Amino acid sequence: MTEGISREELQLAARNHGMPLEALRWDVTPIGLHYLLTHYDIPEVDVETWRLELDGLLERPRSLSLDDVRARPAVELAVTMECAGNGRAHVEPHVVSQPWLLEAVGTARWRGATVAGLLDEAGVADGAVEVLFTGLDRGVEGGEEQAYARSLPLADVRSGEAILAYEVNGVSLPPQHGFPLRLVVPGWYGMTSVKWLSRISVLGEPFDGYQMRHSYRVRHEEDEPGRPITRIAPRSLMVPPGIPEFLSRSRMVAAGPCELLGRAWSGESEVAGVEVSTDGGRSWDEAELEPGSLGLWAWRGWRFTWDAAPGEHELCCRARDAAGNIQPLEPAWNVGGYVNNAVQRVSVTVAS
Amino acid sequence: MTEGISREELQLAARNHGMPLEALRWDVTPIGLHYLLTHYDIPEVDVETWRLELDGLLERPRSLSLDDVRARPAVELAVTMECAGNGRAHVEPHVVSQPWLLEAVGTARWRGATVAGLLDEAGVADGAVEVLFTGLDRGVEGGEEQAYARSLPLADVRSGEAILAYEVNGVSLPPQHGFPLRLVVPGWYGMTSVKWLSRISVLGEPFDGYQMRHSYRVRHEEDEPGRPITRIAPRSLMVPPGIPEFLSRSRMVAAGPCELLGRAWSGESEVAGVEVSTDGGRSWDEAELEPGSLGLWAWRGWRFTWDAAPGEHELCCRARDAAGNIQPLEPAWNVGGYVNNAVQRVSVTVAS
Repeated sequence: MTEGISREELQLAARNHGMPLEALRWDVTPIGLHYLLTHYDIPEVDVETWRLELDGLLERPRSLSLDDVRARPAVELAVTMECAGNGRAHVEPHVVSQPWLLEAVGTARWRGATVAGLLDEAGVADGAVEVLFTGLDRGVEGGEEQAYARSLPLADVRSGEAILAYEVNGVSLPPQHGFPLRLVVPGWYGMTSVKWLSRISVLGEPFDGYQMRHSYRVRHEEDEPGRPITRIAPRSLMVPPGIPEFLSRSRMVAAGPCELLGRAWSGESEVAGVEVSTDGGRSWDEAELEPGSLGLWAWRGWRFTWDAAPGEHELCCRARDAAGNIQPLEPAWNVGGYVNNAVQRVSVTVAS
Repeated sequence: MTEGISREELQLAARNHGMPLEALRWDVTPIGLHYLLTHYDIPEVDVETWRLELDGLLERPRSLSLDDVRARPAVELAVTMECAGNGRAHVEPHVVSQPWLLEAVGTARWRGATVAGLLDEAGVADGAVEVLFTGLDRGVEGGEEQAYARSLPLADVRSGEAILAYEVNGVSLPPQHGFPLRLVVPGWYGMTSVKWLSRISVLGEPFDGYQMRHSYRVRHEEDEPGRPITRIAPRSLMVPPGIPEFLSRSRMVAAGPCELLGRAWSGESEVAGVEVSTDGGRSWDEAELEPGSLGLWAWRGWRFTWDAAPGEHELCCRARDAAGNIQPLEPAWNVGGYVNNAVQRVSVTVAS
């Protein structure tokens, strides 16, 4: 990893929140430990005047209050959400942006109305191809002043389970998670789940705003269009075992049986298995995968008992999914430093 | 500021949480936006087996369950808490530790039993001079394996309003804030408010553990004892006005009247005033200080209307307290990079 992180990157790291990896112990991430990335500022929203506008290619456009949204049938989904930039700080050559190591993840129970249900109610008109979601957070990026906005193909909205969430883990959305209403798209990287939602527009052609055209694309050259980032690639992370050294975060473990545990997820297909290596990735053993008790869209727990012998060790874990995707051993570079799902490596000292 | 932040510092920045400064809009910081520093790992605590041990120089030592603590008379205090390392990343020469810029602060309503009440109940014996608070979080620091532990002079415990908090902002403590019980010491820097509390010991001589003897001291040479860090020095911070550029966090503001707002606090005395500079600290005007509606131990809001003229500006604010302390214009260096309360500087571009 590059040693130097710039002042600009530190400013981002100081305001965006990672999930400390020991929080993988909880199947549902406690509020305040879920990762959080805010492109611009967290807006202050007056719920008395806030409206959700539904417009564009709709037979019956709508302007809804929060009570209106709450009056629709509600669903609750446990969703593992991950930032498309998770792992960026491990990519070389160095990519300048939010410098995530591996903490940009979390699982929450989101409750709200289904997007598909609201669109059915409003009647999608002929010629619709995409649905655009616009937030209230405004800023400048790539020289363009903008409100954060991302679109989804209509087919993905109709076949998926996206919701407009007003509650998380049983409480009203806190400001930083998109109060009063946010989009949650299960299985997709977090940039899709627009916070502080103000408008849903049904479009007759693909949206080419900054966050679609420039950001969140896998590009190997600055000037190529690249491919859009969509679903979460498989990843597994472990709770770092033992106790940490404050500054280096290196781990001290007692000799003898040591239970390693972690979580694994994939937005592309069901997690099919997790392997653990205790020798830096030279050999691998299958971990015990727990049932997916939180449903299709959330991570699954796994366990592995390691017989820790005195000395220095590098622990790794890697997930594979039912579609045949498996985590690579080394990061792959792209212009934005996105979708680096290379295996986690945890250095451990076992005392003799 | 030093350009290069090391991998070790990034690891800390990625797991500890700052309060994005736009959250200064809220008088009580929403859960998940309060700053958070964890020396080691957030421990997982089974509240069924957890006990708070009260021992040492006590006439009636105690072992209490959480229900026992909850059965005592409860008080609720709004407290502004700040890390003693806040501002460290602005100190030069560079100090390697958690690289806080200015976000290591927050205000919460903490509810719990008073420490003084519990000590009275247990009967402090003759010869007691300090009270030691030990948490369940374990790690290695400065080569010493330790549980995080800090002491307070008995006189400060008796004259102060320290509480053993089991609720924050009306809900049970989340894991990262010390579940099931934490110490909250109003007016003191955050290192004093030990989380995941397991033991309170009344001592006949000062505690010289690592977090007292080595950390949290203002030292100008590595090998001098220095002076212990105690109460929070005055500081004021503003909500950065306008909208940000994603990467640089520079601010764009429209020309015309611009309401600046922020919060100010001091653990040493009452806040006596806040001044604002819109020319990088060359001239200062008095801001309008709001009443201290949250009580003695919480920050106070302030406002200032700035007539923003086109061009580049550097906005600053500085607080002073009734004891005569005022924020310096430039950071002062010490070995640990502590207690840097130099004025905030916000670069703003006003469009013509």
